[in-house]
Amino acid sequence: MENKIYIFGHKNPDTDSIGSSMVKEILDRKKGTNNVEAKRLGNINKETQYVLDYLNLQAPELLEKVEEGQEVCLVDHNEFNQSVEGIEKAKILSVTDHHRIANFETSEPLYYTAKPYGCTSTILFEEFKNNGIEIEKTEAVLMASCIISDTLLLKSPTTTEHDKKALAELEKIAGIDVNKYGLEMLKAGTDLDDFSAEELVNLDAKSLDKNGSKFVIAQVNTVSIEDVLKRQEELETAINKEIETKNLDLFVFAITDILNSNSEVIALGKRVDAVEKGFDKKLEDNKMFLEGVVSRKKQLLPVIDKNI
Amino acid sequence: MENKIYIFGHKNPDTDSIGSSMVKEILDRKKGTNNVEAKRLGNINKETQYVLDYLNLQAPELLEKVEEGQEVCLVDHNEFNQSVEGIEKAKILSVTDHHRIANFETSEPLYYTAKPYGCTSTILFEEFKNNGIEIEKTEAVLMASCIISDTLLLKSPTTTEHDKKALAELEKIAGIDVNKYGLEMLKAGTDLDDFSAEELVNLDAKSLDKNGSKFVIAQVNTVSIEDVLKRQEELETAINKEIETKNLDLFVFAITDILNSNSEVIALGKRVDAVEKGFDKKLEDNKMFLEGVVSRKKQLLPVIDKNI
Repeated sequence: MENKIYIFGHKNPDTDSIGSSMVKEILDRKKGTNNVEAKRLGNINKETQYVLDYLNLQAPELLEKVEEGQEVCLVDHNEFNQSVEGIEKAKILSVTDHHRIANFETSEPLYYTAKPYGCTSTILFEEFKNNGIEIEKTEAVLMASCIISDTLLLKSPTTTEHDKKALAELEKIAGIDVNKYGLEMLKAGTDLDDFSAEELVNLDAKSLDKNGSKFVIAQVNTVSIEDVLKRQEELETAINKEIETKNLDLFVFAITDILNSNSEVIALGKRVDAVEKGFDKKLEDNKMFLEGVVSRKKQLLPVIDKNI
Repeated sequence: MENKIYIFGHKNPDTDSIGSSMVKEILDRKKGTNNVEAKRLGNINKETQYVLDYLNLQAPELLEKVEEGQEVCLVDHNEFNQSVEGIEKAKILSVTDHHRIANFETSEPLYYTAKPYGCTSTILFEEFKNNGIEIEKTEAVLMASCIISDTLLLKSPTTTEHDKKALAELEKIAGIDVNKYGLEMLKAGTDLDDFSAEELVNLDAKSLDKNGSKFVIAQVNTVSIEDVLKRQEELETAINKEIETKNLDLFVFAITDILNSNSEVIALGKRVDAVEKGFDKKLEDNKMFLEGVVSRKKQLLPVIDKNI
């Protein structure tokens, strides 16, 4: 049957993009829409794999592109340059997201639910509640995992009271100890040894566009910034290759210490001044340490976006 | 006190833009946010004045422009070219809307609630419900009036089951006979005699932009298309002036018969081919009759947008 509705998060999917897609499929089925199917726009990262293994679930299938008129529901993103190939010609039925809105447009009215929360799954949690639909263990674990991932166990400045309230309630339904489970899950995502430098800089990379300036902010989580910096030289080679092939003005690679809530960023490209001006600090050896910075959305993107 | 949050609908405000702004102010106050204030981006039309007179209410104050950083809530629109001067630099806290999304972007996350319903007030009605907030007579009359206006008494193809359900419930709270009140209200809006041709073509005009093509779709409601067409010559002069001063590619002026649910459109500009191709019909004397067409959003805009 071909009139499936696809649900998917952004490219380079993180746990919220995968988990929220799967949760929205469950929610829509419980509401009576059965022709929905969660998809993914890229490889499953190790953190997300930990969640899937915990629940003994398969990952959604890979979606490479969509045809004209394909019905889709977006979660955890809206910008077309972060979405699937062909999105411009798809029929977007709904968006559920917690990011700024940009590089997005439709020719027809749609459902759009955005809230400035820490995580898409917190919005979905409220949709279960508003519709009086029961949350079962599977979706509770998925939503809890998404919240833990996006808020770094409620420590990121993106965290809202809504996320805290949702996670507290989901913890009970999921039957997990959030701190224990959460730290294991986050640590699973920091195992970067298997990745080539090329893979590392693309693992969780967001492409952005401001008045014609193209830039990328990539991020990896770690328990030791020092360990990752041992590979600085090959990382820079990989980043410079990205800049060249994608004609970027700036590439920012944030290495985030999830235990101490700091980041070291490597910045390359002809517009590194946007980073230096934004954080009022000079890059040394192409990098700078940013105390207390862990959130791309709340701490990196707005600052760089304003100065580029 | 200057940290007021302004709530407003689109330029050339119709009843939904004025009424929904006023209703959102009431809703926000009932939810505990008191520094909100409904505003309007243009003159009150005769239909809306009928509603205000019925409730013995003052119109919101005119808002000419906003300063950088001004906190605002948009209702019934999102496209910046339909919004207030300075909107690009404002801080948009929320959007409540039932239109397509385009020419809109923010640098930070926000609340965005769009649903493909016939009327913004139907979405606000559901917000009262979801938050368990009582709907009193004033807001019931306002919301009912918005729904009647946008759906032409539930006869427009934009009407959804949600609008019907909301209007049925609001009718009881408002203590009105929807058909009697609604027809009087709509008829009040069709009294076009006082308006100059220039005013008529701007009364309810939406500016749009597609890949650099600028076009306007304006609409007036009437109980006699023939009456309005008596002024075709001066209307064309006024339209051509708009095309010239605003450098438009196309101006479509729809004269909609609210009793029989049809429209006559006058189309001028170098891209009238978009109208002819879209409706597969030739313009004669710059006009064409469109059987069953009453909705700009659902029947005019998508067809013209696809062909321009």
